Amino acid sequence: MEILALILGLIGFGVAVALYVKIKAEPAGNDLMVEISEAIHAGAMAFLNREYRILGIFVGAVFLLMLLSKMGYQTAFAFLGGAGCSMLCGFVGMKAATRANVRTSEAARSGGQAKALLVSYNGGAVMGLSVASLGLVGVGIAYALFGHDPVTAKYINGFAMGASSIALFARVGGGIYTKAADVGADLVGKVEAGIPEDDPRNPGVIADNVGDCVGDTAGMGADIFESYVGSIIATIAIAAAASPALLAQLGSGDNIQSMAMLLPLVLAMTGLVFSLCGIFSMRYLKERDPAEALRSTTLIAAGLFLVASLLVIWAMGISLGVFLAIVAGTLGGVAIGLVTEYYTAGGPVRRIALASKTGPATNIIHGLAVGLESCAVPVLIICVAILVANFCAGLYGIGIAAVGMLATVGVTMTVDGYGPIADNAGGITEMAGLGPQVREITDGLDALGNTTAAMGKGFAIGSAALTALALFSAYSTTVGLEAINLINPLTVVGLLIGGVLPFFIGALTMTSVGRAAGKMVEEIRRQFREIPGLLEGKEGVKPEPEKCVDISAKAALKEMILPGMTAVVAPVLVGFILGKEALGGMLAGATLAGVLLALMMSNGGGAWDNAKKYIEKGSLAGEKKGSDAHKAAVVGDTVGDPFKDTSGPAMNILIKLMSVIALVIAPLLI
Amino acid sequence: MEILALILGLIGFGVAVALYVKIKAEPAGNDLMVEISEAIHAGAMAFLNREYRILGIFVGAVFLLMLLSKMGYQTAFAFLGGAGCSMLCGFVGMKAATRANVRTSEAARSGGQAKALLVSYNGGAVMGLSVASLGLVGVGIAYALFGHDPVTAKYINGFAMGASSIALFARVGGGIYTKAADVGADLVGKVEAGIPEDDPRNPGVIADNVGDCVGDTAGMGADIFESYVGSIIATIAIAAAASPALLAQLGSGDNIQSMAMLLPLVLAMTGLVFSLCGIFSMRYLKERDPAEALRSTTLIAAGLFLVASLLVIWAMGISLGVFLAIVAGTLGGVAIGLVTEYYTAGGPVRRIALASKTGPATNIIHGLAVGLESCAVPVLIICVAILVANFCAGLYGIGIAAVGMLATVGVTMTVDGYGPIADNAGGITEMAGLGPQVREITDGLDALGNTTAAMGKGFAIGSAALTALALFSAYSTTVGLEAINLINPLTVVGLLIGGVLPFFIGALTMTSVGRAAGKMVEEIRRQFREIPGLLEGKEGVKPEPEKCVDISAKAALKEMILPGMTAVVAPVLVGFILGKEALGGMLAGATLAGVLLALMMSNGGGAWDNAKKYIEKGSLAGEKKGSDAHKAAVVGDTVGDPFKDTSGPAMNILIKLMSVIALVIAPLLI
Repeated sequence: MEILALILGLIGFGVAVALYVKIKAEPAGNDLMVEISEAIHAGAMAFLNREYRILGIFVGAVFLLMLLSKMGYQTAFAFLGGAGCSMLCGFVGMKAATRANVRTSEAARSGGQAKALLVSYNGGAVMGLSVASLGLVGVGIAYALFGHDPVTAKYINGFAMGASSIALFARVGGGIYTKAADVGADLVGKVEAGIPEDDPRNPGVIADNVGDCVGDTAGMGADIFESYVGSIIATIAIAAAASPALLAQLGSGDNIQSMAMLLPLVLAMTGLVFSLCGIFSMRYLKERDPAEALRSTTLIAAGLFLVASLLVIWAMGISLGVFLAIVAGTLGGVAIGLVTEYYTAGGPVRRIALASKTGPATNIIHGLAVGLESCAVPVLIICVAILVANFCAGLYGIGIAAVGMLATVGVTMTVDGYGPIADNAGGITEMAGLGPQVREITDGLDALGNTTAAMGKGFAIGSAALTALALFSAYSTTVGLEAINLINPLTVVGLLIGGVLPFFIGALTMTSVGRAAGKMVEEIRRQFREIPGLLEGKEGVKPEPEKCVDISAKAALKEMILPGMTAVVAPVLVGFILGKEALGGMLAGATLAGVLLALMMSNGGGAWDNAKKYIEKGSLAGEKKGSDAHKAAVVGDTVGDPFKDTSGPAMNILIKLMSVIALVIAPLLI
Repeated sequence: MEILALILGLIGFGVAVALYVKIKAEPAGNDLMVEISEAIHAGAMAFLNREYRILGIFVGAVFLLMLLSKMGYQTAFAFLGGAGCSMLCGFVGMKAATRANVRTSEAARSGGQAKALLVSYNGGAVMGLSVASLGLVGVGIAYALFGHDPVTAKYINGFAMGASSIALFARVGGGIYTKAADVGADLVGKVEAGIPEDDPRNPGVIADNVGDCVGDTAGMGADIFESYVGSIIATIAIAAAASPALLAQLGSGDNIQSMAMLLPLVLAMTGLVFSLCGIFSMRYLKERDPAEALRSTTLIAAGLFLVASLLVIWAMGISLGVFLAIVAGTLGGVAIGLVTEYYTAGGPVRRIALASKTGPATNIIHGLAVGLESCAVPVLIICVAILVANFCAGLYGIGIAAVGMLATVGVTMTVDGYGPIADNAGGITEMAGLGPQVREITDGLDALGNTTAAMGKGFAIGSAALTALALFSAYSTTVGLEAINLINPLTVVGLLIGGVLPFFIGALTMTSVGRAAGKMVEEIRRQFREIPGLLEGKEGVKPEPEKCVDISAKAALKEMILPGMTAVVAPVLVGFILGKEALGGMLAGATLAGVLLALMMSNGGGAWDNAKKYIEKGSLAGEKKGSDAHKAAVVGDTVGDPFKDTSGPAMNILIKLMSVIALVIAPLLI
């Protein structure tokens, strides 16, 4: 079966490469467009190279430490594999995004909306398919080597840890990069100089567009890759360490343990097949309303997957309860997406827009309140999913619910990857001056990308929460704890330390963005001041965008180290000093605080963003772009930027990374 | 011994009343001053009356429910007693504050700084002594009736629940009142109209001053009263349900259980005696630097208390480990206060001030980052205190550490109560036009009050955290759980629900303030527009402050219901539907998230406030009052207002209230 997983994975990756080649063959437009897109491409690739060099040192050091420890060289090599696959995903996805962006602009110019939608969607599909297929290949190989024996199955955990480690640095580094550029460019360009977004005179615009790629494409891809791999591996680990009572709940066959260990992999394969179906259905859906088309590709894949998974479970002789757990996970993911949509596009947005009338302070107060409020329902949905999954299939149910949520990641990640490409296309269209008609198409695709991005973030948080809980269950099963007892004050201390970490990392990343944006502001102000004729738009006068690109890159690479190392070192310290029960408490505390902060920051940030857009569209009576209320809303949007794109997403990875590290060091704590 | 507690408590309350009479005998200044202070007094008392009428209905309904339930009529009557004592504290403290404020102004005018310091300090002492002595009287009576038998000791818990219920409504209602008025008055007065703070032309100023009394005096008093009573009662409950192993750790005498049950009460008595010493030492310290004088009164009381508690423990035949737990609690409280001082007066404040140069958005980003960052060290301090206390005296140690932290509440609460009186005195001095010399004295006392308020908040959070953990331990001991097991998904669900509640209540209270402040803004704008000559300061033209007072009061009373009821109902629902273990998880989750949010909001808010003051003082090169950086800092200060004075403090009470309700319903869950 693993061979089949491997083959399927390779096919999936082959399709991704083929799509990439196809995209590159599309026309890239006129000289100016090529020049702009080359600048973005060069900036993004240069950043990735520098980032990967630093990560190479980190990965090498951890690899050596693992070799020296008692956890077995197998874990160390699995770690290398996970890190390598995650880096490859980021590389491929970024290549595709920086090629598809300008071709989307050109498609909008020469072919119209349907053509532009298809190009940007296919650009996202390269990322989506890479995530799904490389995950399958990696876990498949690890499973073939270690998965047949519950004793050696623990080595697979190293793969998840490799993926998680890269994810944290990529997400934090990318997040700081993109928001330093975005906040800096907006503060000077839009607020001070009063020129439009993406105006070619603004030296920060190229850095902003590079940031969209490194943050929203590579960062998001690494995040979801980690959830995908983590949920599969956690479920294998739970099955490998399952008690006889739990196994009896899962089915009655003699081989039920190996079937339960195999199921996550089979579901991932099924999900990949139907993700491909979903992705290819875009060819026939592209003429429709883009929002409907995007939604349909996801729903087609999810629906077919659910039907097929029922057949798979029946064929493997596994209890129907497991199927219900999968349904709980899948529906939970959808429900969280809908709640996210409400908070970032519904009534709360109008509330924030209205509060902007009394100035930036009330805009911020209401935005923070919306963020805080938006945690309630998604957490209750996660609670219901846990209760159902646990009732139907015990701890295994929680793991398999996460797998179910993430199985069709090929297509959900495609939709996520589409967003930054459409955003970039909008920027290129503006900078190259392709005119209002083309701009209207790319603006429409871009606005849609904002909604898919917000829903994608909700999905990422929901899946991260379930994955973290699955990893937590895997940890407690693997480490052989009967109880992680909150009456024990050591567990409470672990809980408190775990809970404070997301706040601390949130503080570090917010400060980093604030500091880097400050430098960016100074540099852009300097160029407007010192380059004669730049701000006036004199013919032939060009800004120096590479200096802004360099500021963002340097800040991102420097500032990602401390939060990244904190997340890696903290669980190891607590585990070895305070013990395995305190480490369990720590994971629970970190997951709780991390999920809450992630929801608050992502939804608050999204709502602020859309409240500003709401006023810009003229939907708030008496207000328009440039009015006092709009200026207040721009303040909220700027605060929301690091919330939703830096600190919030870092939480997802933090909680998974800490859990997976605990799982990997578990054998040393017994 | 309880008789002695009763007598001591009555003596303490007698001293409070005597101080009040003495304050009233002080001269109240000229007619204008009397008029202004009467308006504040009338507004505050009218609000308290309306609030208490609503709370009367709530208390009556809960009392009836308790009578009908199986928890025993004794619990119901203890509940009434706790609620009554808390309300009486609020009433007495408010009376004293609204009399001492104008007399502080007058003392500053006619007698100078030392005299003004003594009057405002004594005003605070009425509140401080009321809290300490009424707590002692109430718990003393309850102990005399039920404390001699570990079986009936559970009835005492009702007293803590009564105190907690009142505290939540008082804190939330008072917090909404004060910030709606403050934010509204500042937004129109300082930002739009450009008139100074506390300018008599501003119709919102009286409401703002009333708010200082109802929020910072009555609200803070109810908060600390709850911690004080809660920590004593939790420790009694832990001792009453202690295992033989725990008792053996506490001492070797035959009567060790009754001694352990009695100790919290004896410590409270000791603390009250030395609080009186501390308070009276102000007579001899008043000529010194006010900051030093305030600090000295606290240190005198705490030092003498520690020495005496060592003797008490030795005399009662209790193990020295218990003394070390008390030391851990006391030092922990001091350390948290110092960290709070750093974050609200040190480097982070300069960081925020500097970030104001690039506008309100970066000011907010850095302020939020400071708030998030400020959680780390206090939580680690709490962890160390837990580890030490638990090592020295088991779960009992955690309870007694909280008692140690709170024993000298008479004097710490005096210093807290001093703050709003000095603040009010500053307002009255400005409104009555007493001139720059007097203003300098009251401004100095007011600024000092800001620092004591920030440190008091840190202390309130630290003590709330320890009290909540003590109550949590008492709950798990009483309900007879061997483990609150995080591997059980039901516990995880409880943890998640508990964690989301502080976020939800934070959202409700922030929204309430935003909404009420919006109404206040409209009313003040209307008066400036419609009352001819008001803004120009024409002779004889007066604003209509009573309309603003009414808006604040109505909003506060309406908006306090939902958060209050949520906190009361949630633990009952979870306990009866999901069971006692899930309820334990819920308490842990609520405590974790509540402490983190409380720290973030209080410290972030304090730092924003002082960053604004830092710029106003001219400490940021090139910036001054009215500059763009200052305007940006005012936005941050306005956002920080509901953070530090409404939502943040509500968290303290929320976590204690939920724990105490769990403790009270524990017998029904067994």
